[in-house]
Amino acid sequence: MRIVYGFILLALFVKPLAKAQNGIVVFQSDFGLKDGAVSAMKGVALDVSPNLKLFDLTHEIPAYNIWEAAYRLHQTVPYYPKGTVFVSVCDSGVGTERHSVVMLTNSGHYVVTPDNGTLTLLAEHVGIREIRQINEAINRRRNSNESYTFHGRDVYAYTAARLASHTIRFDQVGPKLPNDVVRLPYQKADYANGVVKGNIPILDVQYGNVWSNIPKTLVEKLGVKPGAALRIQIFKNDELLYDKSVRWVNTFGEAPLGEDVAYSNSLLNFSLAVNQGSFSEKYKIFSGPEWTITVSK
Amino acid sequence: MRIVYGFILLALFVKPLAKAQNGIVVFQSDFGLKDGAVSAMKGVALDVSPNLKLFDLTHEIPAYNIWEAAYRLHQTVPYYPKGTVFVSVCDSGVGTERHSVVMLTNSGHYVVTPDNGTLTLLAEHVGIREIRQINEAINRRRNSNESYTFHGRDVYAYTAARLASHTIRFDQVGPKLPNDVVRLPYQKADYANGVVKGNIPILDVQYGNVWSNIPKTLVEKLGVKPGAALRIQIFKNDELLYDKSVRWVNTFGEAPLGEDVAYSNSLLNFSLAVNQGSFSEKYKIFSGPEWTITVSK
Amino acid sequence: MRIVYGFILLALFVKPLAKAQNGIVVFQSDFGLKDGAVSAMKGVALDVSPNLKLFDLTHEIPAYNIWEAAYRLHQTVPYYPKGTVFVSVCDSGVGTERHSVVMLTNSGHYVVTPDNGTLTLLAEHVGIREIRQINEAINRRRNSNESYTFHGRDVYAYTAARLASHTIRFDQVGPKLPNDVVRLPYQKADYANGVVKGNIPILDVQYGNVWSNIPKTLVEKLGVKPGAALRIQIFKNDELLYDKSVRWVNTFGEAPLGEDVAYSNSLLNFSLAVNQGSFSEKYKIFSGPEWTITVSK
Repeated sequence: MRIVYGFILLALFVKPLAKAQNGIVVFQSDFGLKDGAVSAMKGVALDVSPNLKLFDLTHEIPAYNIWEAAYRLHQTVPYYPKGTVFVSVCDSGVGTERHSVVMLTNSGHYVVTPDNGTLTLLAEHVGIREIRQINEAINRRRNSNESYTFHGRDVYAYTAARLASHTIRFDQVGPKLPNDVVRLPYQKADYANGVVKGNIPILDVQYGNVWSNIPKTLVEKLGVKPGAALRIQIFKNDELLYDKSVRWVNTFGEAPLGEDVAYSNSLLNFSLAVNQGSFSEKYKIFSGPEWTITVSK
Repeated sequence: MRIVYGFILLALFVKPLAKAQNGIVVFQSDFGLKDGAVSAMKGVALDVSPNLKLFDLTHEIPAYNIWEAAYRLHQTVPYYPKGTVFVSVCDSGVGTERHSVVMLTNSGHYVVTPDNGTLTLLAEHVGIREIRQINEAINRRRNSNESYTFHGRDVYAYTAARLASHTIRFDQVGPKLPNDVVRLPYQKADYANGVVKGNIPILDVQYGNVWSNIPKTLVEKLGVKPGAALRIQIFKNDELLYDKSVRWVNTFGEAPLGEDVAYSNSLLNFSLAVNQGSFSEKYKIFSGPEWTITVSK
Repeated sequence: MRIVYGFILLALFVKPLAKAQNGIVVFQSDFGLKDGAVSAMKGVALDVSPNLKLFDLTHEIPAYNIWEAAYRLHQTVPYYPKGTVFVSVCDSGVGTERHSVVMLTNSGHYVVTPDNGTLTLLAEHVGIREIRQINEAINRRRNSNESYTFHGRDVYAYTAARLASHTIRFDQVGPKLPNDVVRLPYQKADYANGVVKGNIPILDVQYGNVWSNIPKTLVEKLGVKPGAALRIQIFKNDELLYDKSVRWVNTFGEAPLGEDVAYSNSLLNFSLAVNQGSFSEKYKIFSGPEWTITVSK
């Protein structure tokens, strides 16, 4: 009998760890933080289970910018422990025909989102283990069916909370879908004939740094290493907007203030900065599929 | 004896659930997130009890805008589990004569706030179960009495944390007040002679959508349903600023990009948007008591 | 045997309280909230221990503004319970020669940060109990050594999480350093010959109020109390930009709307405001080491 108590105790502490989900939910949206929308999503989640641990990715995704939503997930999801459930709500077509899904990645993370392109980069770089369509007949907040425009709260936050809290198993989300997602087209990193090409998927907005999708290892195929000078060209569509020789540094501290430098960002991708300035503002370089960057010796 | 251990154990886990408060505190203010003010409030709460679960409604209430603070509470409080304690600090008259109160709503939520109008909409729409004045002789952070200007931290966050953590019972907040609060005047939603009238209490700032206080059910009294075209007029005081026929849609996806549409927002109120644009910017329509909207066939 | 269970149980609940760290980590940075950088830091911390309680000070420190980072720590750290671990990442010289340290304050708080001046005000006002250099051979996220530019995530958040979760003891952070830190020079508050002098370390940005580093007790040496009129002069370097007689109030409510007032801020320092306006914008007064304020009768 005493042993039974011991086991019950043990079970109380150990059981959550043994399951796939870890009770952590991370929210991303284009809602901003000025109104109550993000907070209402969290309220709904806590109403499912007050023991959930709720965090944010960002809520400053520019309105309807599905590409940036995809990029932020790709940049951040892998750092969280396996079993974390992400909610991403950035959706120009709320209520139109696209699936509401939960994707389980090969890394063991869950993402609850409309399948509108948001999963492009995770699917490509991390991979899909399984993907299920949310059955809204079951996984929808009670008495919420009249609200067409707030799926984020009534379906996505609610389903994520039920999954993260083990209220439902993954297979109870809804029917299994084929292992693919809607993918946004974009230019891939590429090396040929002594030139590395790539895209500017995103800016490091806080500092005005320009990030590419080119891994530093691809630049090293030019036979160069940090310390070397590199010729950088940046195009918007076919228009050449930047053409300079830039030093590739390990750390900004190696360069004088105000100097253009190339460096490897936190994702180990080739990037451009002005030491303690804004490269983006100085040269009017922005991000998106229409931007191309080339690197050569 | 073993049974005793069992009961102690049981008590440890079950007791918090049996009480009215659930250990969750949600903060709202006009402090912004650029300095340490919000974080200091949370520090004070955690110093009362490190096991509290702390969340935010918003801290981007425009400075001194009590109306918007009232609106955000009304919009968000109901989604949180019963027993959640809210702190709302938006107070032009810090230190002047108004009561510091804790209101218990009919829905079982607590709101800690200066009674300066912030409770207007919750009192009207959710209702007051009981309201108590904070006794600052007891419910004030030790050694804080010299700071006149930071009630948010020293009284409101502190009292909320004590209440949420069961350090004090609700009746220990302070003396019971009559069941009423300071109410800000505003124009109510109304139907007469084939015209629905209402106010624009708030914008959906992130998207520039215009929200009214008119329930969709009141619009349906015109004998129309989503799908119909409606005549919308918007006045600032007596000046007519918008007069158009607009289609009432279930989802933005039904309308072409850039088209004006009417829809039901997440509160099921009649609202106006430009599909993937900003209605507010396009037509210079804003929110507040001076704005009136009429809907007719 | 039953008693053994009792003790084990007791140990499970009591042990964390008996240790120096309390499982709370508070993050500050100049990263902003628009991308995934802050969230990635939290993911890394939760991957160390999913039971950590994570909070924010602010992430809106202006880029590279080490002085403001120092000020926000000074303003906020003391309100958190002892044993809280702070992470502050605001670092123009990432990768250059400065120590990565953990400072234990005399108040029992830990701060994980580059020693680049961020600790100036805490060291001066709260005091250093012990300071240790982070041994990155041990306290660095696995497989992260190629990323030079994201110490915040791979070293600071990781080390803070290990310390806060008792994965490592404080002495396992790395070797002990002499009890001093890099200190930024700034003008101290001072009374002489009927004039109180001080610096404007910071603005209350949300409201545009001007804060000084002058304790109200120093102003009282002029033989005045709240209610009195005081002559205020403000200089940028040697240029006189403001020279007026201002009433010292206990609460803004005592003054008419739009009037300049002096008051004691939440740190009990002498401050200037326009009642429901922005003193900073009205008079173009900002903060930093080049700003001087004098107060006399």
